[in-house]
Amino acid sequence: MNTTVQKYENTKPENNVWNVKSTQTVKYVVEIVRHLFDKDNPKLSDFCKNTGSSNARVAVFIDDSVDGQYGEKIKAYLTANSIEYAWYPITGDEVSKNIDSVTNVARKIAECGLLRRSEKILAIGGGVLMDIVGFTANLYRRGVPYIRIPTTLMGQIDAGIGIKTGVNYQDHKNRLGTYYAPQAAFIDPEFLRTLPQRHITNGIAEIIKMACVKDAYLFELLEENVDKFTAHDFANFSPAHQEIMVRAIDSMLGELESNLWEDNLERLVDYGHTFSPSLELKSDPTLLHGEAVAVDMALSAGLSFTRGLISKLEAERCINLIQNSKLPVQHPIFSVSLLETALEDTIQHRDGLQRVPLMSTLGEAVFVNELGYDDLMSAVKYVKIFSQKETVDGLRY
Amino acid sequence: MNTTVQKYENTKPENNVWNVKSTQTVKYVVEIVRHLFDKDNPKLSDFCKNTGSSNARVAVFIDDSVDGQYGEKIKAYLTANSIEYAWYPITGDEVSKNIDSVTNVARKIAECGLLRRSEKILAIGGGVLMDIVGFTANLYRRGVPYIRIPTTLMGQIDAGIGIKTGVNYQDHKNRLGTYYAPQAAFIDPEFLRTLPQRHITNGIAEIIKMACVKDAYLFELLEENVDKFTAHDFANFSPAHQEIMVRAIDSMLGELESNLWEDNLERLVDYGHTFSPSLELKSDPTLLHGEAVAVDMALSAGLSFTRGLISKLEAERCINLIQNSKLPVQHPIFSVSLLETALEDTIQHRDGLQRVPLMSTLGEAVFVNELGYDDLMSAVKYVKIFSQKETVDGLRY
Repeated sequence: MNTTVQKYENTKPENNVWNVKSTQTVKYVVEIVRHLFDKDNPKLSDFCKNTGSSNARVAVFIDDSVDGQYGEKIKAYLTANSIEYAWYPITGDEVSKNIDSVTNVARKIAECGLLRRSEKILAIGGGVLMDIVGFTANLYRRGVPYIRIPTTLMGQIDAGIGIKTGVNYQDHKNRLGTYYAPQAAFIDPEFLRTLPQRHITNGIAEIIKMACVKDAYLFELLEENVDKFTAHDFANFSPAHQEIMVRAIDSMLGELESNLWEDNLERLVDYGHTFSPSLELKSDPTLLHGEAVAVDMALSAGLSFTRGLISKLEAERCINLIQNSKLPVQHPIFSVSLLETALEDTIQHRDGLQRVPLMSTLGEAVFVNELGYDDLMSAVKYVKIFSQKETVDGLRY
Repeated sequence: MNTTVQKYENTKPENNVWNVKSTQTVKYVVEIVRHLFDKDNPKLSDFCKNTGSSNARVAVFIDDSVDGQYGEKIKAYLTANSIEYAWYPITGDEVSKNIDSVTNVARKIAECGLLRRSEKILAIGGGVLMDIVGFTANLYRRGVPYIRIPTTLMGQIDAGIGIKTGVNYQDHKNRLGTYYAPQAAFIDPEFLRTLPQRHITNGIAEIIKMACVKDAYLFELLEENVDKFTAHDFANFSPAHQEIMVRAIDSMLGELESNLWEDNLERLVDYGHTFSPSLELKSDPTLLHGEAVAVDMALSAGLSFTRGLISKLEAERCINLIQNSKLPVQHPIFSVSLLETALEDTIQHRDGLQRVPLMSTLGEAVFVNELGYDDLMSAVKYVKIFSQKETVDGLRY
């Protein structure tokens, strides 16, 4: 033989057992960038060219309606900055949040033949679009890079800045999905200028959530500015609106970063998300995500109060803030029997325990594991009586 | 107010930029366990009960044909060890490796209502079944625990011990998939006893691969034992067969562990996987994965030789080992034009560069980036002439 046979040097594993262990660090940037698509704003362009070339290619998946309003401006930006693009408007509503949309997006990614690591996908739209495109980006070649550009308030402070992706499956919200970080999430409040009021209000629900369980100062800010929750106010980004968005994002990211893969199933960000998944799927006409969360948060305030965790005044402030934000606090199908079924589903999802976050004071929460029929009944009744009284007084929605 | 408003203490992010960073450690065990399903073997039972309860529930996804041969024994094991099970035989052939099979498995997981973290999925079958069930386990609730029990040689030394999952999509092998570690992979050579010879040979291809690029000693072991590659020999687990399997697993896991998420696209384990994906998808009648890899490895040996990386004798030993293992070294559709198309696909997958691993001596490889038409032509011609000569001599397959 003219070849040297080198004996393989590794020690053989003991008893034919191998313990495989490896560590992965996930990093991404979340940044508020006003006027992201003004031609001379280098932020996104630099990011797309971060592999060093002066040209770049991207595949753009953009919500239909965002395309109608901003498509030309975005295309002009890409062209002016020498970024070649494939352009794919898609539907980003809850109904299309299914596995077929994922294979549809995959087909388009295959079509434009991006390089695996150095050419990126841009996801521009609301939370549902982020979920679908992020999911597909994760599955395609087991992961290709993507950038999130959320255009709704919900997307900008919640759904667009984390790493969760997913679609609905059968009767279950987000039953199929992954954890998959974007390379960046860029938040441009300018997109909010044309957002319908109902979708601004939808996002407010998740801001109230963070305030209730983590940031009492934010809660007060919301109370003070409750009559200024309009698209224009957010787009104009006044100091108060900036502070609201920054605190909402900051408290959300603080929770996510320390528990990015949900190893801990006691999650403050699940506040208002115990009963709402069932409500969101079963309501007809359909509730938006934030609307269902609002109804759940009102009930949760009722649970906290009736269990003696918070005072009457605190519970009332919570429900008032939800109502004054023009969010619902009740729903005809939100019966104790639906709540029990929803809780069963949630228990499976939380690995055998209820782990229901309930406020212990404004800006703090504890986790509760033994809610029963009586608790649910009392809380439903409490919310009903309280909100009816307010309606009778003619003061609120 | 009777509540204390606590000012939120976190420092605000500078310039509205957040750098999110988090680290995840993935751990799993790979273990050779003979007679895994003998009733008094506590290995699997203990593992299923590792959350502390004396009972356990599992969902079993088992290859149809494995079910026919081993189903009753496995059920008896589970019952004897107080493990409640839902039993789902599924088809594990290449044709069913698609997204429909994934939603089909998801439906069954939903049906049996496992708890999210403490109740497990068992995947029992070949590499394709591992890929489908592992993929679904990753997507369901963004990840539920599963255990791999590969029953084919390919599964036991390659497809069943890593963390890659996936299905074919359109004309592309494994185009949709994820990285998702099992909690454990248990390897019981007893399953090989009933494996058809073609599938034993199929697995041998991946063992030859590891030998060529990483373990010259294994290469010699294979040469010495090439007439003993039968189902019975592997199931009986003679010292030589044990050493072959242990070295194959050890060298494979060594490569995977240091590059679990393929951050480095120069992968030794891609040897024989540059041109073979196209061959595997386009051959009719269909080649098994290892058969396509074998044809690619013979060509790669030709490329190494014609480019002066290895000696004539080394190239001949490679091709001889493949042929003596009863694996193919040529295929009618493996033309230079197919090779060029396949290389284009691979370049996209390897982010713009060829990164073709080629042997530099027995047990070592280098990565090559500028293969051209002439290289491919010479290598095809070399393999053709060499293997014809051998056939004429009547010595080999």
